[in-house]
Amino acid sequence: MAAIVLCFASLTKLVGRFSPLALLEPASGLWHDSDQVLPDKAELNMPHSTFIKVRGYHLDVYQHVNNARYLEFLEEARWSYLEAVGDIEHFELLGLAWVIVNININYRAQATMGHLLRIDTAFTQINGKSAVIKQKVWLDGTDTLVADADITFVCLDKKAGRAVLIEGPLKERLATRLETL
Amino acid sequence: MAAIVLCFASLTKLVGRFSPLALLEPASGLWHDSDQVLPDKAELNMPHSTFIKVRGYHLDVYQHVNNARYLEFLEEARWSYLEAVGDIEHFELLGLAWVIVNININYRAQATMGHLLRIDTAFTQINGKSAVIKQKVWLDGTDTLVADADITFVCLDKKAGRAVLIEGPLKERLATRLETL
Amino acid sequence: MAAIVLCFASLTKLVGRFSPLALLEPASGLWHDSDQVLPDKAELNMPHSTFIKVRGYHLDVYQHVNNARYLEFLEEARWSYLEAVGDIEHFELLGLAWVIVNININYRAQATMGHLLRIDTAFTQINGKSAVIKQKVWLDGTDTLVADADITFVCLDKKAGRAVLIEGPLKERLATRLETL
Amino acid sequence: MAAIVLCFASLTKLVGRFSPLALLEPASGLWHDSDQVLPDKAELNMPHSTFIKVRGYHLDVYQHVNNARYLEFLEEARWSYLEAVGDIEHFELLGLAWVIVNININYRAQATMGHLLRIDTAFTQINGKSAVIKQKVWLDGTDTLVADADITFVCLDKKAGRAVLIEGPLKERLATRLETL
Repeated sequence: MAAIVLCFASLTKLVGRFSPLALLEPASGLWHDSDQVLPDKAELNMPHSTFIKVRGYHLDVYQHVNNARYLEFLEEARWSYLEAVGDIEHFELLGLAWVIVNININYRAQATMGHLLRIDTAFTQINGKSAVIKQKVWLDGTDTLVADADITFVCLDKKAGRAVLIEGPLKERLATRLETL
Repeated sequence: MAAIVLCFASLTKLVGRFSPLALLEPASGLWHDSDQVLPDKAELNMPHSTFIKVRGYHLDVYQHVNNARYLEFLEEARWSYLEAVGDIEHFELLGLAWVIVNININYRAQATMGHLLRIDTAFTQINGKSAVIKQKVWLDGTDTLVADADITFVCLDKKAGRAVLIEGPLKERLATRLETL
Repeated sequence: MAAIVLCFASLTKLVGRFSPLALLEPASGLWHDSDQVLPDKAELNMPHSTFIKVRGYHLDVYQHVNNARYLEFLEEARWSYLEAVGDIEHFELLGLAWVIVNININYRAQATMGHLLRIDTAFTQINGKSAVIKQKVWLDGTDTLVADADITFVCLDKKAGRAVLIEGPLKERLATRLETL
Repeated sequence: MAAIVLCFASLTKLVGRFSPLALLEPASGLWHDSDQVLPDKAELNMPHSTFIKVRGYHLDVYQHVNNARYLEFLEEARWSYLEAVGDIEHFELLGLAWVIVNININYRAQATMGHLLRIDTAFTQINGKSAVIKQKVWLDGTDTLVADADITFVCLDKKAGRAVLIEGPLKERLATRLETL
């Protein structure tokens, strides 16, 4: 299975001389690889929000944000979220990788030039071998939902090369973030 | 509702001095706006296939085709299909627009540099107010399914500004293309 | 001539029901279409800086920001700059459009995951019928110049359909922003 | 220096289980790593042409192909050219990488929906440490030049980590392809 592989372990290879690991420090220092300190949700300021202003190059022939471009917006928001909660380093140290196996996105309203979009991101489901991140794209300051999506991941043990059960400390870590979005 | 609006009617406004309508002629001359001549499926050479070679700029940090890029591949294949079956002009003349309301895509295998992808496209469902196009991305020459997706559309009457029922000649036209992909 | 047309005047047509013109208000209220009040450079906080964090989807097979992606970064920074100085509305009212006729970009250093890029943007030249915006992409917090570019524009009178001389109030407006970047 | 690194040598690492090297075989079998057989230009069918149909997702707010998108078109054409002349494998075996240090592109005419673009690609200069590939984007079937660009590369010895002089067999190989485009 594969699509966009979140190869956390391989991130170290990508860091060149202009990218000391310091750039990837979690926003909060609460996450330790050996002894997890699980923060109160309020401390993580959830749901995580990312703001994107719609520009000319985001639009297509119909003068609305292109369907494929929304997936870049969602990926931008997920990276921002993972950085904020310290997951990038954490999963890298555990040798785990999240693999996207499905994206189910509803396009509900049109967004165009000058619109400020707010993308809210949160884990909403943990299953046996998969987890779901839900993301909602709002026209900021209104109750207009532009788009919403469920992104389903499996967790891959990079060494073993197979999906692992989401259990134990891994499940515990994700469970603190579950919410209805 | 909106996302990527297939505003066929507005295409005339987009045609500048370098793009005579001749460039948008259907591959076959069987489609007439007033009196539909419905071709035999075999004449349309279905399912429609589009080939894309994976290049360096299609990949992301994980060295696989990026999740958002697949949606551009699928859109490329849909444009090619619509051109081949004469829909672009036909719906433009009828003042109808197809609006994407959902994309549900499964990422099943990784594609990278040098891979030749074959995208098969076909209508697979016609419902009361919506239709579904299914697309499959194959590693050409193998039985490896890289990704597959269902794209759900509603049909918008641009003048009235609302979704129309898919019935009569419209339904008849699409029905000739239905198949299991 | 054409490539990316900055058709300010046509922006009004693009504004749908979710994008009141209020979203495009200049940051400062100093610009009036009839009687230009020309601000002191210091008030405009020049050069204008835009920050972009490099994400996985920005990279290509070589795990560096792709050459084409840099042009989107530069366009993002130009939109941000034009918004900040009130040009979007101003030129729209005057029926003028800026047309890119050349981009000359030097790629000097590699940027990858986790890098924070700072893009500085400023007008650096006003010629008879063209103007040049220079942009520099810095690895923020360092003296590493990742890339730099000169973007040459001509100013098009949309009604007349031809390039106009950059003179009078138009030249005066741009002249206040000229600097060495 | 860096920008888009054409790391031919690293391509072997990118080839996964779905991409046997066979997919990267040169179109002609004339190139041997030890004993170069230099073909007659006519055999290479130069200049190399790549065709791209303009689709809805290529356009931006101005309904023309976006400035950044042209750079993807040019990269697509370069990959196709390199594949056709067998360079991808050849430089990989020599441990050499081409690094883009500059792109100078002129935008001369607007391209939009339905346009068929023909991109001609050829080496036009060999200097001491750099080489230039010129590319022209034509509205196919007309004498309308949509855009043209010079892409300047330096040749990097990946092991030594520095640019090498373009001389000897390397220079000889490129010299057979030089032409005025």
